[in-house]
Amino acid sequence: EIVDWMTQILIDQQTDLPLHGKKVLVTAGGTREMIDPVRYISNRSSGKMGYAIATAARELGATVTLISTPTALTRPSGVKYIEVLSAEELLTQVTAKFAATDLLVMAAAVSDYRPVQAVDQKIKKQPGQTGLTLELTETSDILKLLATQKTHQFVVGFAAETQHLLANAEKKLAEKKLDMLVANDVSQPGVGFNGDTNQVTLLTPNSTPVTTNLLSKTEIAHSVLTAAINRGA
Amino acid sequence: EIVDWMTQILIDQQTDLPLHGKKVLVTAGGTREMIDPVRYISNRSSGKMGYAIATAARELGATVTLISTPTALTRPSGVKYIEVLSAEELLTQVTAKFAATDLLVMAAAVSDYRPVQAVDQKIKKQPGQTGLTLELTETSDILKLLATQKTHQFVVGFAAETQHLLANAEKKLAEKKLDMLVANDVSQPGVGFNGDTNQVTLLTPNSTPVTTNLLSKTEIAHSVLTAAINRGA
Repeated sequence: EIVDWMTQILIDQQTDLPLHGKKVLVTAGGTREMIDPVRYISNRSSGKMGYAIATAARELGATVTLISTPTALTRPSGVKYIEVLSAEELLTQVTAKFAATDLLVMAAAVSDYRPVQAVDQKIKKQPGQTGLTLELTETSDILKLLATQKTHQFVVGFAAETQHLLANAEKKLAEKKLDMLVANDVSQPGVGFNGDTNQVTLLTPNSTPVTTNLLSKTEIAHSVLTAAINRGA
Repeated sequence: EIVDWMTQILIDQQTDLPLHGKKVLVTAGGTREMIDPVRYISNRSSGKMGYAIATAARELGATVTLISTPTALTRPSGVKYIEVLSAEELLTQVTAKFAATDLLVMAAAVSDYRPVQAVDQKIKKQPGQTGLTLELTETSDILKLLATQKTHQFVVGFAAETQHLLANAEKKLAEKKLDMLVANDVSQPGVGFNGDTNQVTLLTPNSTPVTTNLLSKTEIAHSVLTAAINRGA
């Protein structure tokens, strides 16, 4: 406790740290969209990549807010923590903080579809019923909405793909007016999701994509932040 | 480590413990049904109730196997642990162990619907597409399948309901030929899911249902096992 408190003071005193005086907002985890009070749709995400980025940003001197869905992870020291469940709750929190943010890193796996109607009561099987049709509708595209409100913020998005990684990533970078996109091919072993390692391709406007080696998520977090700082974050 | 090892030996030496010599199989957590490599459907379940039952059964002298989906919980000491993801994987594991089981406690929240077809690649939005229809089909009803294979086993099921608790529970008890059903009304505060407390109604064939007070999940676990032992488990 005391060691942690000392560490936080020491970080804030190091005015030469690259993110000193910067406000960094990080999202992590996978959002949940309720079908009924018991069932939900979600996305695979351990939250590890977002937590690693929040930790690294704090170590680099930033004031950090982490908006996360519930995870099994230990909350990073010296970081403000806000818990959310659905894509809509995440949108509300990110929007509220965006104006005062210098660097936004959207590492959360946000559901892009939710049930058209969340039912108040647990759906019961009817006699003879063997199937169920679930009508889904798009959730709000948080990055697209923020693009229109962007002033000085440096915005980093994430993309988990299983095929056509570069083409899908280039499209997302442009459409959502991102300053950087971190793309990973989650069909590769050791990449993305629950593991402690990751390999990513960093895309920035008007430059050649750079692919990292397979590294620890801590190392990836530092690579992403260093690249963002070098691009003006 | 040594304390734990001593504890396990001491438990096995206490031949007067009520579950001494019994094989107990417990399932815990919420199963996941993949929609594509990234998205899935699941059920709210922290796994706490199942873990509490596995721990209590071990303390009462049983040889315990815990089949669980990934959770944030610490694995109980002296208990064999098997990890599963989907309802189908859970069925395979439970079926393989059932013949050699004396007491089965199905505390897992098993998905009763899964996508008709799990897609190999991440589903991408098409231009202009704002909705998605998901066709779901029933998963295997594990308890119903086991009912036909039952010989000496005492089988305990769980039911999480939001309305008509008793009516739904009575129906499930009879249809699945259970020896006991633990029903909880998850719409009540402090009941079910992520909390550390629970309040349940125990139903057994041909007797009046008994509702517990709001208790810790450890206390509920002991109440359930004691009731099962009293009914011949």
